[in-house]
Amino acid sequence: MSTTIAPVDLAKAYRLLNHGPTVLVSARHNGESNVMAAAWACALDFSPPKLTVVVDKMTRTRALLEGSGTFVIQVPTAAQAQLTHAVGSHSLADQPDKLERAGVELFEFAGHDLPFVAGCSAWLACRLIPEPHNQQTYDLFIAEVVGAWADTRAFADGHWQFENTDPSWRSLHYVAGGQFYLTGDSLTVKVDEAL
Amino acid sequence: MSTTIAPVDLAKAYRLLNHGPTVLVSARHNGESNVMAAAWACALDFSPPKLTVVVDKMTRTRALLEGSGTFVIQVPTAAQAQLTHAVGSHSLADQPDKLERAGVELFEFAGHDLPFVAGCSAWLACRLIPEPHNQQTYDLFIAEVVGAWADTRAFADGHWQFENTDPSWRSLHYVAGGQFYLTGDSLTVKVDEAL
Repeated sequence: MSTTIAPVDLAKAYRLLNHGPTVLVSARHNGESNVMAAAWACALDFSPPKLTVVVDKMTRTRALLEGSGTFVIQVPTAAQAQLTHAVGSHSLADQPDKLERAGVELFEFAGHDLPFVAGCSAWLACRLIPEPHNQQTYDLFIAEVVGAWADTRAFADGHWQFENTDPSWRSLHYVAGGQFYLTGDSLTVKVDEAL
Repeated sequence: MSTTIAPVDLAKAYRLLNHGPTVLVSARHNGESNVMAAAWACALDFSPPKLTVVVDKMTRTRALLEGSGTFVIQVPTAAQAQLTHAVGSHSLADQPDKLERAGVELFEFAGHDLPFVAGCSAWLACRLIPEPHNQQTYDLFIAEVVGAWADTRAFADGHWQFENTDPSWRSLHYVAGGQFYLTGDSLTVKVDEAL
C-alpha cells in the first residue's frame, strides 16, 4: 500500500461521496473478483455512515456482492477516466480478462478480504444491509460503511484537496457517451452565524 | 416562465442528475410550499426515470411531500450557491419567511401544482412511490420522474452545455461547512467500438 494512504474518520466518510462522483464498485466471492463503474451511488447517513448504490442484475459484480455481503465503493480520479469507462462498459462474462485489459490493479487493506482498486483517491469498505425488496424491485443496494481510507494527496484533514493538488486527482462525474465532467473550482458561501 | 426553458425528453432526464449535483427539493401541500437543499439525491432508473432522495424527518418539506405525494427536484446553479446553502440551513418551522429571506422565487409549469424554483438549470417533477419501510428506516424516498425541463442555456440537445455557457450556470456539489465544488471541465474518453 502506498504510504500516502491514510484512514478516514468514519464520521467524515460521507464527505468522500457528498460531491456526487462516479464510483467504482468492486466485490470478491469464492476467490473471484470484479470491478464495475457506477454513476448512481449516494451517501445515505452520517453515523454510522451508510450509502446506496444501484447495481444492475446483468452485472457479475452484483452476484459477487450478493454472495459475500461485502463490497468496496472507491472514488476514481481523472487519471483513471479510461479505466472507469472500460470497467463500466464490459462484463466479466464476455471478457474474462476485463480487469487486466482495463489496467486495474487490486490491493488489500489489512483485515478486509476485498478487492480495492489501486490509484483511486478514496475507498469505502461496505457491508451490505440486506433489503431484498429494494434489490429486486429497484436494483438498489444499501450498505453500512465499515472502513474508509483516502490518498492524502487528494483528501486530507477531512477535506478534499483538489485546489492544492494536481488536476489528475480530481473526481469524475459521468454524463453519457464517454463524457465526464471533472470536479471543478471550490466555492465557499457565507455561513450564517445563527446556525 | 422564461422562454429559454424547454422540456427534456424523459428518456434523457437521468442526465440532469447523473453528474451528482446538489439539488433543491420543493413541495406543496394544502397551499403551503417549502424548499430545502439535498446533497443526497441520485438517479435510480432510466425508463421510466426514477430517483432517490434522502429527506430528514426534521424537515418541513418532508411533511409536505408525504402529504401531497409529489415534489420537485431541481438543479441549482453556481449563481444560487448562497440561496442553496440558506434553504439547506434554515427550517420553515423556525423561520416562517425562510423562502423570501433566501431569495427564492417560485413559479409553475402548466399542469403541475408544484413549487418550482426560478433560476435553476433543470427541474424534475416527481411522483412519490410510497415505500414506508425505506422512508421510516432510512429517510429514503423513491419517486418516478413525470416531467422534466431545463434552461437551454445550461442543458440543450440532451447534454449539459457547461463548456459553452457562462460559469454561473455550473452545478453545485456540496461538501461541508459552506463549501461547494462547481462542476468542472469536460473530459471525453475513447469509446470502445465493440460495444
